Amino acid sequence: MKLQNDLFLRTAKGEITERTPVWLMRQAGRILPEYRAVRKQAGDFITLAKTPEMAAEVTIQPVDILGVDAAIIFSDILVIPEAMGLPYEMVEKKGPLFPKVVQSKQDIDNLKIADPETDLGYVLEAIDIVKRELNGRVPLIGFAGAPFTILCYMVEGQGSKTFSKAKKMLYTQPALAHTLLQKITDSTISYLKAQINHGADLVQVFDSWAGILSPQQYKTFSLPYIKQICDAITETPVTVFAKGAYFARKDIGKLDCQVVGLDWNMDIRESRRMIKNKTLQGNLDPCVLYGSNRSIESHTKKMLKSFGSQYHIANLGHGVYPDTDPDKVKCFIETVKAYQHS
Amino acid sequence: MKLQNDLFLRTAKGEITERTPVWLMRQAGRILPEYRAVRKQAGDFITLAKTPEMAAEVTIQPVDILGVDAAIIFSDILVIPEAMGLPYEMVEKKGPLFPKVVQSKQDIDNLKIADPETDLGYVLEAIDIVKRELNGRVPLIGFAGAPFTILCYMVEGQGSKTFSKAKKMLYTQPALAHTLLQKITDSTISYLKAQINHGADLVQVFDSWAGILSPQQYKTFSLPYIKQICDAITETPVTVFAKGAYFARKDIGKLDCQVVGLDWNMDIRESRRMIKNKTLQGNLDPCVLYGSNRSIESHTKKMLKSFGSQYHIANLGHGVYPDTDPDKVKCFIETVKAYQHS
Repeated sequence: MKLQNDLFLRTAKGEITERTPVWLMRQAGRILPEYRAVRKQAGDFITLAKTPEMAAEVTIQPVDILGVDAAIIFSDILVIPEAMGLPYEMVEKKGPLFPKVVQSKQDIDNLKIADPETDLGYVLEAIDIVKRELNGRVPLIGFAGAPFTILCYMVEGQGSKTFSKAKKMLYTQPALAHTLLQKITDSTISYLKAQINHGADLVQVFDSWAGILSPQQYKTFSLPYIKQICDAITETPVTVFAKGAYFARKDIGKLDCQVVGLDWNMDIRESRRMIKNKTLQGNLDPCVLYGSNRSIESHTKKMLKSFGSQYHIANLGHGVYPDTDPDKVKCFIETVKAYQHS
Repeated sequence: MKLQNDLFLRTAKGEITERTPVWLMRQAGRILPEYRAVRKQAGDFITLAKTPEMAAEVTIQPVDILGVDAAIIFSDILVIPEAMGLPYEMVEKKGPLFPKVVQSKQDIDNLKIADPETDLGYVLEAIDIVKRELNGRVPLIGFAGAPFTILCYMVEGQGSKTFSKAKKMLYTQPALAHTLLQKITDSTISYLKAQINHGADLVQVFDSWAGILSPQQYKTFSLPYIKQICDAITETPVTVFAKGAYFARKDIGKLDCQVVGLDWNMDIRESRRMIKNKTLQGNLDPCVLYGSNRSIESHTKKMLKSFGSQYHIANLGHGVYPDTDPDKVKCFIETVKAYQHS
């Protein structure tokens, strides 16, 4: 089906476009009262993510309500560990918790390579519904966690400031870590390809914990697996967002991906120099959206000017924070849409 | 009193020295069973920090047990908010919690500029005891949090991954934030000067949450206050450690401080280029100490080689993690001490 608004996709592919497209990470989420209503109906986060009709509904909400140029399927990066045999719970105000964690070769042997159609059918079904209901209005983004970030949760068992248990494995049992990373990578590639088969127009890889690794560890334990994913996905453009991995920008720039996400710490001009011939995505500080409309407009315009008129997808440098006023999000989106590059 | 081992201080001052000095952030802490014994006797962390004899005892332990080239006074950066009128609790496994937080001009007006001799006498008394008992064996490091990091806790009220409430103040009430930052800065300067009067041989400023700010916000809300501190402290060398603020290295290099701390994400050669004519401190990934002795030696030697034979104080890139084996810490320290630069 031909897309009515394919601005996001054309920009991702490096085409010259009439304006900068815009969407927000975590746009399908707690900022919208309409989301909170569905979430309440579902009872809990995981039920919401596993109920295709509901997941589809919250995926489309920001398209209708906020007017973004792309939808992103409502899901969670931790569906991959679960599909591999490591289920998790979502503890209110604490985040994810894995009752079992990976510690040994035996634990890894017990994991399976995820089969998306059987193990992650609920995501694919949600994508089917979204595609049907979007009816070509905007493109749909699929996603997965980067293998290193997924390993972090599988070994640590929960969120952490340092992920020191996960990093311990890299230093004490590097071969084990590589075995696990490969198994996650194989699962992730199948999963992303399935999302694309069901209609995802672009896929984004989130390396949310990239920033806790030293540059050398990042080259060893994260980049090679993201590279495998980029090399394997030839059907659609790929976005790589490695939060905090400023030190790896040159290397990420050499990957066979089309878009690179920047967080709000990363200087725009410096990133352009380091990442050539790719579209950049980002990178407003999410806290800007706490300010007045005037302040949001001023920060957004400054960012747009700095990225320039092409090869940029406007976004925040991180997921939108849950306590952000949707009207402030609209102000951000409308500022991008109205901006005239001089 | 003349120091018997002043290697750390001479290196901090930029003198050519016979070998690289070494100490660890959080060396006086949970890694040592001897510390845990005193901590148990005290009952809780805050009592330990507020009992000068005990604080002095755990300050000296790593000098005796680990053989580090400097002691650092056992205390907490949050004694400053408390001295200003905002007390906190330390919640087991959760970290600091402030029952009251700063939200308004009135809240700031209610805070006082800390008077170190009356409000922080217990730290100064601990310094007196440490100096007497160290008897010139090694220098003593005093410290304080950077004003922005202290603001984070005073506004957020507890630890956070994003400190979005604290950052919200910067975007919505910048004048209020500056008033608070100035009051913290004034308190911090008095406090550091008092530490020096009581015998601290160098003071370190920890900007632990520097990395959550955008480069522009860092220039506006953190650097100017660290600059005030550096300009005010003329009695001893000053170390600035702004964790995560890789984007501010050039600006930090221009401060009137003698030592700059690096975290493990920061490339050593690049940092040398950005920070000229200063001693650098750091920057081994704390997780390296989970590895085998052989691996620790190899990573440590690689780091030493990269920093070169001068203007370097060996340390980790962050505080040593509490579950680190003291024997592994010794391996790190001994590797530094034995290293011959070729």
